[in-house]
Amino acid sequence: MNDPDGEPTRLRLDLAYDGGGFRGWARQPGLRTVQGTLEAALARLLGGDPRLVVAGRTDAGVHATGQVAHLDLTGVQRARLARSRTPDPIALAPRLNGVLGQYPDLAVHRVAGAPDGFDARFSAVWRRYEYRIADRTTGYDPLSRGRTTSVAAVLDVEAMDAAARGLRGLFDFAAYCKPREGATTIRTLLEFDWHRDADGVVVANVKADAFCHSMVRALVGGCVAVGDGKLDPADLIDIRDARVRTNEVKVLAARGLTLTEVGYPADELLGVRAEQTRARRQADDGEFRGRGA
Amino acid sequence: MNDPDGEPTRLRLDLAYDGGGFRGWARQPGLRTVQGTLEAALARLLGGDPRLVVAGRTDAGVHATGQVAHLDLTGVQRARLARSRTPDPIALAPRLNGVLGQYPDLAVHRVAGAPDGFDARFSAVWRRYEYRIADRTTGYDPLSRGRTTSVAAVLDVEAMDAAARGLRGLFDFAAYCKPREGATTIRTLLEFDWHRDADGVVVANVKADAFCHSMVRALVGGCVAVGDGKLDPADLIDIRDARVRTNEVKVLAARGLTLTEVGYPADELLGVRAEQTRARRQADDGEFRGRGA
Repeated sequence: MNDPDGEPTRLRLDLAYDGGGFRGWARQPGLRTVQGTLEAALARLLGGDPRLVVAGRTDAGVHATGQVAHLDLTGVQRARLARSRTPDPIALAPRLNGVLGQYPDLAVHRVAGAPDGFDARFSAVWRRYEYRIADRTTGYDPLSRGRTTSVAAVLDVEAMDAAARGLRGLFDFAAYCKPREGATTIRTLLEFDWHRDADGVVVANVKADAFCHSMVRALVGGCVAVGDGKLDPADLIDIRDARVRTNEVKVLAARGLTLTEVGYPADELLGVRAEQTRARRQADDGEFRGRGA
Repeated sequence: MNDPDGEPTRLRLDLAYDGGGFRGWARQPGLRTVQGTLEAALARLLGGDPRLVVAGRTDAGVHATGQVAHLDLTGVQRARLARSRTPDPIALAPRLNGVLGQYPDLAVHRVAGAPDGFDARFSAVWRRYEYRIADRTTGYDPLSRGRTTSVAAVLDVEAMDAAARGLRGLFDFAAYCKPREGATTIRTLLEFDWHRDADGVVVANVKADAFCHSMVRALVGGCVAVGDGKLDPADLIDIRDARVRTNEVKVLAARGLTLTEVGYPADELLGVRAEQTRARRQADDGEFRGRGA
């Protein structure tokens, strides 16, 4: 999107962070959050009061390798950028990383003018998360401890994989969500599977159009109960279809969870998608749709 | 090794640690070190004043996934272990990890009675290290920042690999070592190669009979100068053969370095190997041979 002088009015930012040192994405007074940290860095370079809109509002402790946000520039900010030695928005990524310091826990991979109609939250078609678990057969790796949950069991990954695949589809996932006033819990779970990686870590791949609050961590908790022999794959479907939360399903720790990817339609379809999503969500759930953890 | 009652007198410990929170392996008064932390945990379980001997005395900030140490038990400690609810040394690993806390930066993978003649330091036949570098094409991963060095260049990994392979063999590596009084710098570099892994990280594999101080970090620093076009592979050989340190070779940061594996001979050859090594090292280099960083 460009203003009449051809300067971009909306920027797309691609980000990664180690969630361990943040109290989640959303800005909160007096707490270190991803949004607060990044907005402060943007304010140093652009002035004003930058406000980011994000694809996945991750909870405290949740990581991201493929987070996406957008930022609308004011006329004053556009003029300041245009006057700078490196007016191309592309140059903002290394400048922001410079502000964020050496070996930071938050890094900006790319900044670019957003295509027409792009909205980091409402244009997104799907979000993908990864969840990592070390069990008793994996062994414990201190170097990966920040991004891997440990469980004191030997997990049957085949059973977990079968259970996960059985949960896919368009359903009301209320049993796997923390309720939010006025928020729908109907989601399309597009992919959900488990494998053991080369290091023996048990890894979930989870992809949906959007996630309600704590949904990934409850889904993986249900699968761990299956992998540990406490539930059968069919139990997870019964729990889903009962649409009531149960303490048989534990919400696993944030440390194992990483937002890895956000999908958007082709540029020419962006505006249409954002309008559809915004209309649907305003109709049914107010603020909290799009939370991812 | 067992005492007349069949209780083991020497234990072998296999360890892993994130070096970021430690001032290196060696115990130092008032500083948090790997040896000091582990000896304190052992003292809690066994009493007395446990003293570990290690295969690779890693420097501050250096990590390990495959470190090996041994511990000689006193008669009092053996009796205490024999009286405990879990007298098998195997059970010491989970007990030590319990003392070290949840999600610790130091973990004990295995404890077992050492075979006859085993000495963690003097029986070792080789040590293997890995060095990880993110360059401009890799992108920066906040979740791996603790174990990966960043360089502001695009590295030619093929040239680095060729340079590394050219350095292998039995040579005086004085040009790549921090000098130590009375310590030899003659080493056999058994393996040295580079590749880019699936995440785009530039990774060195380095294996030698033993390493002199800062040798791995200087060798990888030389290769980075090649990958960045500042030196030719042949220059690294010339530098080696000049046997004098040069500021063309930078000693890279500890954070990229991990001790991954220590090799020992078959059990029946352990005693012979330890005697050979001890005799040779006492003849030429006193305390510091076997340092790995």
